[in-house]
Amino acid sequence: MQSSHLSTTTKPRVVICRNLGPDVMPLLEGRSDVEVVVWPEDSSCDRKWLLEQVRGAAGVLLMFPEKADKALFEAAGPSLRVVSTMSVGYGAQFRPPIKLSQRSTRSTEHIDLTELTNRGVKLGYTPDVLTDAVADITVMLALMASRNAGSTINLVQSGEWPKFRWAPFAFCGPQISTLPSSPDRTVGFLGFGRISQATLKRLIPFGITSCLYTANPHSPPATDRDTAILSHHPTLKTLRRVTADELARSSDIVFVLAPGGESTKHLVDEAFLRKMKKHSVLVNASRGTLVDSDALAKALSEGWIWGAGLDVVEGEPNITLDHPLVKEPRCVILPHIGSASIETRIDMATLALNNLLAGVFGEELPAELKI
Amino acid sequence: MQSSHLSTTTKPRVVICRNLGPDVMPLLEGRSDVEVVVWPEDSSCDRKWLLEQVRGAAGVLLMFPEKADKALFEAAGPSLRVVSTMSVGYGAQFRPPIKLSQRSTRSTEHIDLTELTNRGVKLGYTPDVLTDAVADITVMLALMASRNAGSTINLVQSGEWPKFRWAPFAFCGPQISTLPSSPDRTVGFLGFGRISQATLKRLIPFGITSCLYTANPHSPPATDRDTAILSHHPTLKTLRRVTADELARSSDIVFVLAPGGESTKHLVDEAFLRKMKKHSVLVNASRGTLVDSDALAKALSEGWIWGAGLDVVEGEPNITLDHPLVKEPRCVILPHIGSASIETRIDMATLALNNLLAGVFGEELPAELKI
Repeated sequence: MQSSHLSTTTKPRVVICRNLGPDVMPLLEGRSDVEVVVWPEDSSCDRKWLLEQVRGAAGVLLMFPEKADKALFEAAGPSLRVVSTMSVGYGAQFRPPIKLSQRSTRSTEHIDLTELTNRGVKLGYTPDVLTDAVADITVMLALMASRNAGSTINLVQSGEWPKFRWAPFAFCGPQISTLPSSPDRTVGFLGFGRISQATLKRLIPFGITSCLYTANPHSPPATDRDTAILSHHPTLKTLRRVTADELARSSDIVFVLAPGGESTKHLVDEAFLRKMKKHSVLVNASRGTLVDSDALAKALSEGWIWGAGLDVVEGEPNITLDHPLVKEPRCVILPHIGSASIETRIDMATLALNNLLAGVFGEELPAELKI
Repeated sequence: MQSSHLSTTTKPRVVICRNLGPDVMPLLEGRSDVEVVVWPEDSSCDRKWLLEQVRGAAGVLLMFPEKADKALFEAAGPSLRVVSTMSVGYGAQFRPPIKLSQRSTRSTEHIDLTELTNRGVKLGYTPDVLTDAVADITVMLALMASRNAGSTINLVQSGEWPKFRWAPFAFCGPQISTLPSSPDRTVGFLGFGRISQATLKRLIPFGITSCLYTANPHSPPATDRDTAILSHHPTLKTLRRVTADELARSSDIVFVLAPGGESTKHLVDEAFLRKMKKHSVLVNASRGTLVDSDALAKALSEGWIWGAGLDVVEGEPNITLDHPLVKEPRCVILPHIGSASIETRIDMATLALNNLLAGVFGEELPAELKI
């Protein structure tokens, strides 16, 4: 009888492109049924090393800096059963799978889906687990952009606090919480998926009274869901799907939490920003491409809106000091750390590892991206 | 009949130490029953100017940088009926009035209470209105301290993002939100007044399961209040008054929101910090004196705790670049902006003005600090 690559005499090999840390790597200890190869450095996996190691492998676990392109699939050969990416999308950290089929030919992604499907390789990913981590960062950015966190931290960090002349309205920004003299707040979500809903849930006790959102025009109304949300949160008076135009005009905070890609590129452009309220704040925690950086810089410097909080910027990570948003005092920029919490990244790594092992042994993946 | 200083022939004069801005100053327009003198510059009121203008005045409205000391009371003379401070306390922004009588002889405050009471002058202040603004900043600081906001903003602001080597756990911090793999979170409040309760309310949808607090040992148990909070928030399993020791050992986030003064000085000291969890975060949004800065710097640099978020620092605003906390990468410092939201400062200024006018005309003050 011919030995297969799943037999005990030839153990399947898996290539893991990063050390997954002391909380996750021990899951592989004592596994005698698989040969594990791990990139030994604390950096992106060397491409040449990867192409060598993947030869004859049954599975590969990678992250978005690593590319699973045609060359990798060819190097791996027919033994490859699964690619497992430690990311919610196949391109970068945030991308809902719903529009996947529309983008399978895009060349900018880190996984070549055409090669993958043609070769019958399964794709594991890590959805859902990062919802709460990103919602936390989204709330944080809304608060920071409103309350001048960038300028005020900078005052202290530059040693200028002792010279600061206190004044009744110095460093004041719009308040997210309602108060008796200002009892209404409207938040607007461009895209109302899991992260948006988790963000709304966190903001309701701040006194949010109205929530507007946009959705894919082809998606049916979610009346039941919206009724359920309203009935669970009696202080929330309104929850409505609206046009982007109405959302821009009516929201005190606009959250950009829609999928990336061509169809949403520069959804927030000059025209959108000009419609926003003068004391409103823009938060982007999805993909940089949704917001036109030049238009946003203009909106901030000319005072069309109050402030911005960004976890993502178009063209990242190549955001240098000459970028129009970097020195804008009302713009807080984080280097894409939405899902970067210890617990969430452990969950993502664990899920990626379980996807890898399930794929190698022909089992159902805990989270398979069906294409 | 002798004309009094309240007669129509001699209008009472009020001295206002700062321009209260375009939302509040118009409240004085058309008031023919009062002579208004306002410090004309956008800076602290000149002391000499104040002592001259206050002569024979019926009321003075000031902020914490201005001192209502013996010299001011003497300059004003017997006409003075009210001092109105645009602050929650008589010393700095945050100080609950409950312990006031214990501190009436302290010389560091901006209002000399002995002079005030001996002369029968009323004191107006602005409590309550800043609760929500401070709770917002408190939540923001907890998120920022956990999720490495200081270091990550700095990465972008220094132009280093393009060179950053992405890694699965780079910039990861402990997650405030619960997740299925980590379903419990305990928050601890040193002091459980209005701001603490407003902070807890905001944090509950992040998944907080347990809340511990300390209270003044002389205060009775607040069983009814705690039962009510628990019944309103079914996901909150525990709400308990504990010792500072238990609070330090058990909390994932410790919030310092107790009154200042000698009795609470360095409540958070080396011994307290050494008991805290390694992944815990400390937030101080009350008074700088409650936290020993040197001990906190040691705790952060030696990794006893994860991070800190401070809106107040002992010795502020004289916090220079050589301060041990300023360059601590896991310490976020804001320059005391807890109440600095536009809406709240308008409310504070409006209340201060209404206190002033009520005091001048012998009416009941909307918010009088009874001594």
